[in-house]
Amino acid sequence: MSLTVYRKAHFNAAHRLFKKEWSDQKNREVFGKCSNPLYHGHNYELEVGVTGTVNPETGFLIDLKILKELIETEVEIPFDHKNLNKEVPEFENLNPTVENIAKVIYDKLRKKLDAKFEISVKLFETPRNFVVYTG
Amino acid sequence: MSLTVYRKAHFNAAHRLFKKEWSDQKNREVFGKCSNPLYHGHNYELEVGVTGTVNPETGFLIDLKILKELIETEVEIPFDHKNLNKEVPEFENLNPTVENIAKVIYDKLRKKLDAKFEISVKLFETPRNFVVYTG
Amino acid sequence: MSLTVYRKAHFNAAHRLFKKEWSDQKNREVFGKCSNPLYHGHNYELEVGVTGTVNPETGFLIDLKILKELIETEVEIPFDHKNLNKEVPEFENLNPTVENIAKVIYDKLRKKLDAKFEISVKLFETPRNFVVYTG
Amino acid sequence: MSLTVYRKAHFNAAHRLFKKEWSDQKNREVFGKCSNPLYHGHNYELEVGVTGTVNPETGFLIDLKILKELIETEVEIPFDHKNLNKEVPEFENLNPTVENIAKVIYDKLRKKLDAKFEISVKLFETPRNFVVYTG
Amino acid sequence: MSLTVYRKAHFNAAHRLFKKEWSDQKNREVFGKCSNPLYHGHNYELEVGVTGTVNPETGFLIDLKILKELIETEVEIPFDHKNLNKEVPEFENLNPTVENIAKVIYDKLRKKLDAKFEISVKLFETPRNFVVYTG
Amino acid sequence: MSLTVYRKAHFNAAHRLFKKEWSDQKNREVFGKCSNPLYHGHNYELEVGVTGTVNPETGFLIDLKILKELIETEVEIPFDHKNLNKEVPEFENLNPTVENIAKVIYDKLRKKLDAKFEISVKLFETPRNFVVYTG
Repeated sequence: MSLTVYRKAHFNAAHRLFKKEWSDQKNREVFGKCSNPLYHGHNYELEVGVTGTVNPETGFLIDLKILKELIETEVEIPFDHKNLNKEVPEFENLNPTVENIAKVIYDKLRKKLDAKFEISVKLFETPRNFVVYTG
Repeated sequence: MSLTVYRKAHFNAAHRLFKKEWSDQKNREVFGKCSNPLYHGHNYELEVGVTGTVNPETGFLIDLKILKELIETEVEIPFDHKNLNKEVPEFENLNPTVENIAKVIYDKLRKKLDAKFEISVKLFETPRNFVVYTG
Repeated sequence: MSLTVYRKAHFNAAHRLFKKEWSDQKNREVFGKCSNPLYHGHNYELEVGVTGTVNPETGFLIDLKILKELIETEVEIPFDHKNLNKEVPEFENLNPTVENIAKVIYDKLRKKLDAKFEISVKLFETPRNFVVYTG
Repeated sequence: MSLTVYRKAHFNAAHRLFKKEWSDQKNREVFGKCSNPLYHGHNYELEVGVTGTVNPETGFLIDLKILKELIETEVEIPFDHKNLNKEVPEFENLNPTVENIAKVIYDKLRKKLDAKFEISVKLFETPRNFVVYTG
Repeated sequence: MSLTVYRKAHFNAAHRLFKKEWSDQKNREVFGKCSNPLYHGHNYELEVGVTGTVNPETGFLIDLKILKELIETEVEIPFDHKNLNKEVPEFENLNPTVENIAKVIYDKLRKKLDAKFEISVKLFETPRNFVVYTG
Repeated sequence: MSLTVYRKAHFNAAHRLFKKEWSDQKNREVFGKCSNPLYHGHNYELEVGVTGTVNPETGFLIDLKILKELIETEVEIPFDHKNLNKEVPEFENLNPTVENIAKVIYDKLRKKLDAKFEISVKLFETPRNFVVYTG
């Protein structure tokens, strides 16, 4: 019996879309108001999916308490109330688009979750824009 | 033309996570407050997906009125305002985790829906925890 | 400058509508399936409003961190994953209708919040049924 | 790095389920109140998904501003505040079920988006009924 | 103990904003695309509030089952899947703006509910536009 | 016939809670992680309510298209994708708490809307924290 368990989480942060190798003018041309040098920000809503086999003894695929704590440790604590460009090392040389943030979250969780699980990361940047990344 | 039609439904119920073969103490160790012997409960939100071919004559994959009534008969009436452990026979010997509840719903609908359809069951236990089961 | 600050919270619990002074039959007649002796349950969604004057020095009406912790201590910890009828002393002799639960929450918060604040309690029993109590 | 970017949009419209080749009576038998000759209507909520490879230079899969404008041009402007049966040419001979509307939207976007992208269309007819079409 | 109990409901309908006394051209000037002579439509989301005193014997302000059935009889059955302009008598000479629809719903419920209750009607025409009417 | 019309809007922005007259250390003590000198940010969800008398000729309290454009001009354009502390003049000497942001929005709209209307401003800073200001 294979299924997927999901856990929602939340963080808010400041960011700007910005590529170091480009001039400020080129950043503005490509990324528009999202490249504001003084930053803007979002309430990021996150849904982590874990696919695997249900343990017939417990009826759990994964203990949701453990998944919740893992998301806190790997995502909420390092990202919440932060400036993604300046304070989150993964974005020192990586443009914090919603695509790249989802990938960074996936990679951090991938290292901590047993390889027997598949993972999906759904990340809302606004209520109207979101991405899904599955590795 | 193959697509998926979804219908949402709702039931609320009491349950406890509990494995008969284990002592109360071991149940408490593994399932924490979810194993409270006096029960707790949830508003379960359900989304049933049916995948198949659209009938070119009607433009329907399945008549949603029929799907709605099937979910009422198979899920809402037997589960709503019930104690899952004590009053729903499928859980007499099965721990009513959200994983297992989704599987039971899937199996009940699978028996009643034409084999030409694929089914998915998405079940929210809380607004932050949910599962998807596809057989 | 007078305004209202709101904080949302969540707990889930089992309950039954039940009046001790009545027979089981009369309870069933008045409360229907909500009086199931084996209980059912809900995800209760709570919105607490605090009305008062904004402190011109801080720009805060009340520190939301303090309000969040107060709701945890007074509502979430004593109510979450509990059987309201059996484990929450306020309902020992009080029918746990959504009206009465809202009143109990209001009374608990009223004792702890400065008298200069007005309070409102909005409580969802299901996504379609809710109450507002303002004392 | 392959992922899916989603953009939500909205339009509202009148329609009736109706097959020209059938008598009014047969339409009523098959489609019930949805075949009301004087029409009814919905707020259609749309989620368009675009799957592809993230451009390592920009960190974008597709510029969401361009996707937003494409949905406006292809869907919102021609469908919003319209009578689907009478004013949207695609439904002149096609019953505007939610299944068929999703397919029409998919086909319109498919013609305009680069073939390197996969597309998905999720369309809510009501908060409880929706479809997903992926071509 | 005075509080307010709320019940949500839903109907969908076609309408056009239209004043009989005006020419089509003037209707178009004032109401824009909302005056499309071929109609458009909405999923109307309704929240009815009933304010009064909680019965200390039952713990109910009003039996929500009775309120639910009243909304079905007075609003959902006569309005759902209808053309408001053509099929709902209250709008024969009244422009079906969301303001006027809320007032009509209020007046219908006011006649049926005991005068000891105050009533409020919240009506969403779209997820972004709504009104509250309290008599 | 007096009622309230509501319109929802959205903007996202960076900010920090910060009082110029205080040291960085005191700001950190009072405002915690919300005072991060490198900023964080939010998706602010706004609901503007306008209370008044419905025009019996049009059935409108206020043309929602005009209200929508006013919110765009006064709030969305000057606030969206901005650093509130650095780029929005109203916060040059005012701490951008959600309380103060709501007040600034109220004051801007108050100047532009006819005095015959009452106004309310509901502002969500996160899905769990929000305020209502009515002047």
